[in-house]
Amino acid sequence: MIHARPLPAYLIQRFHGWKATTYQQNRAWYRRLAESGQHPRAMVISCCDSRVHVTSIFGADEGEFFIHRNVANLVPPYNPDGEYHGTSAAVEYAVTSLGVAHVVVLGHSNCGGVKGCHDMCRGHAPALEEKTSFVGRWMDILRPGFEKVAHLSDDTILRALEKQAVLTSLENLMTFPFVAEAVQAERLTLHGLWTDTGEGDLEQFDPERQAFMPV
Amino acid sequence: MIHARPLPAYLIQRFHGWKATTYQQNRAWYRRLAESGQHPRAMVISCCDSRVHVTSIFGADEGEFFIHRNVANLVPPYNPDGEYHGTSAAVEYAVTSLGVAHVVVLGHSNCGGVKGCHDMCRGHAPALEEKTSFVGRWMDILRPGFEKVAHLSDDTILRALEKQAVLTSLENLMTFPFVAEAVQAERLTLHGLWTDTGEGDLEQFDPERQAFMPV
Amino acid sequence: MIHARPLPAYLIQRFHGWKATTYQQNRAWYRRLAESGQHPRAMVISCCDSRVHVTSIFGADEGEFFIHRNVANLVPPYNPDGEYHGTSAAVEYAVTSLGVAHVVVLGHSNCGGVKGCHDMCRGHAPALEEKTSFVGRWMDILRPGFEKVAHLSDDTILRALEKQAVLTSLENLMTFPFVAEAVQAERLTLHGLWTDTGEGDLEQFDPERQAFMPV
Amino acid sequence: MIHARPLPAYLIQRFHGWKATTYQQNRAWYRRLAESGQHPRAMVISCCDSRVHVTSIFGADEGEFFIHRNVANLVPPYNPDGEYHGTSAAVEYAVTSLGVAHVVVLGHSNCGGVKGCHDMCRGHAPALEEKTSFVGRWMDILRPGFEKVAHLSDDTILRALEKQAVLTSLENLMTFPFVAEAVQAERLTLHGLWTDTGEGDLEQFDPERQAFMPV
Repeated sequence: MIHARPLPAYLIQRFHGWKATTYQQNRAWYRRLAESGQHPRAMVISCCDSRVHVTSIFGADEGEFFIHRNVANLVPPYNPDGEYHGTSAAVEYAVTSLGVAHVVVLGHSNCGGVKGCHDMCRGHAPALEEKTSFVGRWMDILRPGFEKVAHLSDDTILRALEKQAVLTSLENLMTFPFVAEAVQAERLTLHGLWTDTGEGDLEQFDPERQAFMPV
Repeated sequence: MIHARPLPAYLIQRFHGWKATTYQQNRAWYRRLAESGQHPRAMVISCCDSRVHVTSIFGADEGEFFIHRNVANLVPPYNPDGEYHGTSAAVEYAVTSLGVAHVVVLGHSNCGGVKGCHDMCRGHAPALEEKTSFVGRWMDILRPGFEKVAHLSDDTILRALEKQAVLTSLENLMTFPFVAEAVQAERLTLHGLWTDTGEGDLEQFDPERQAFMPV
Repeated sequence: MIHARPLPAYLIQRFHGWKATTYQQNRAWYRRLAESGQHPRAMVISCCDSRVHVTSIFGADEGEFFIHRNVANLVPPYNPDGEYHGTSAAVEYAVTSLGVAHVVVLGHSNCGGVKGCHDMCRGHAPALEEKTSFVGRWMDILRPGFEKVAHLSDDTILRALEKQAVLTSLENLMTFPFVAEAVQAERLTLHGLWTDTGEGDLEQFDPERQAFMPV
Repeated sequence: MIHARPLPAYLIQRFHGWKATTYQQNRAWYRRLAESGQHPRAMVISCCDSRVHVTSIFGADEGEFFIHRNVANLVPPYNPDGEYHGTSAAVEYAVTSLGVAHVVVLGHSNCGGVKGCHDMCRGHAPALEEKTSFVGRWMDILRPGFEKVAHLSDDTILRALEKQAVLTSLENLMTFPFVAEAVQAERLTLHGLWTDTGEGDLEQFDPERQAFMPV
């Protein structure tokens, strides 16, 4: 016995509207994508946050980006222990099966996951320190990043930690043998971005300066 | 030393185009979302596949959906062992921190992860059976679902297994105490959907008939 | 003995600059395109004119559009007589081999080919009426279009004729059996555009109103 | 009744982004080009293939190159029979109306048209031998080129034939009286190039050695 409910009516109505308009106008393209398979040029790893502009800032259509979204856009270190690793599975599929040319890690302002990590590391969020807290344990990935910015003042530390989440993911990506190999063979490039969702700003990690710079 | 590269120029140009148009036109809303926080009404769990119409079929704007995307839209069973569980963290954050009213699991046609699971369970994909295969281990979540459809013919089994992926996730969601509690308190409803991305069709799991029906 | 000369030095220098910058930054994507083949979503038929913004107005990168450019963006009628038909070959390759989802005909302002057609049809360009004039004979494709706008005043007829060039091509495209078949099967859509290259305006043919309208 | 559809929304959004940024920044130049006419320094004849870097490798802006693109960058022999000859019309317009100083023929790696010609000449592509195959008949232009490389091994013949396509076009260009005359008067030079689109390499035909050499 599966617990499920019918969709709210307003969502069903919106679907029928989409089917009668957007789908009709793009049917040829959607059918071709279904029949000839996806060939996305990039994988995007972003946060689940409802405010993050993942595709619209790049004018992207269906078929362009393979998108993994999790809390705080984190990639854990390589750990092939036979357990369930959803993020690692997504990276593996993108790089080894789809052969994407780019992996883009997109961080963002006001990230709730990063804020939780900050509070936890400061000792202000005991609930997140419980072994049973999935969010707390997930955000443990960012603890080394917190150490790097712990000296910053209260008004700058959160943005710095959000950017550390991007850098931590970039570093962890390179611990995956198939990622490192594709990067070294110049078949894959990694990109680190951070966006201010309210101001619409976009910064990218500049490898020359080892700092985030406005694009 | 972080491995990263500048974004391709065409993506930067598209971003500046977005900033000058879509962003300018929606600035008030994006700023309010940034300042007053996100209040998404639903969490959507969908596949990373570039062809899945996750938000457009529901006419959704920034702020509406908290979106987790992984390979084959799977939720593993509740297992608070202190390890990294990205999907469980996303569900926990959505239900306990954001208090979403709905969790929608969205499966889709031509799912590469589901196809891999099928081939692996049939014994045709030894590479996926390796302990080190993240995709293979992740798709183990769907092995019980495969058993339920293993008797089907070649031309129907894949779609049936794609729908089992949705049902498996719905079942596993109910093993999370905070999900079951919210469902029982009628503060949360679960929904199972499957879409044909080429034909633009949408089916939902009907709890009366215990079957997927067109919306 | 082939008549050819070395490239001018400034072009060689620009190439080496491109190789050291743009190519280096996009090598992964260009390699993947070379290895896994092109999967362009659309064919664009535009004029050879050096002023036409064929790809930049759509923020397009390598791999997105299969592009045929000829004088006045014309498609001749279907005529499988065994002779050389470069435009028909391009359309055939795009539709039957690549399976593009869209064919976009892009006309433009100040089109020299269209101006020549106008002058020839008005009897002011005897050289273009010579049998040996390739431009004159090519622009014969647009003679039926001229008849439709011949009543217009001098200050409006050229733009009207530029748009007739787009419509003539759209009509002729439908005389190709493989185009008509793909359109009827809803695997291909045709689109008619006209751009003012100086003002940066873009109009599209609106099938409801049977007229060009600003996008 | 014209068959046409509205443009996909993502392309319209990208256009508005371009209009608000790239166009605004270059308006003065685009307007001057519109008002004072085009004065391109060269004509480029390249393939329709979406992967060919036609202008970016030369850092070219609007106004610089008059560009004809067809399948396999072929120029047919001079044949003023009063029929439609799109490529010949483009060459005539560039040389006699615009007075370009250079005609550059640009071939490329992994050319689908050249591959088709190879298969057809080997007897492995009967569909291309049909009278009604526009691609087959168009590629007949390259049959004499195939004879010159037919003795080569499977792993070198395709690249050699891609280069023959460039040489065939250069030879056929000289059969046009207005081309030969302009070349002899030293008002026009011809150039033969071949590019590896994945590796970003560029070779040019060296008239001294009668061979392609890296630039």
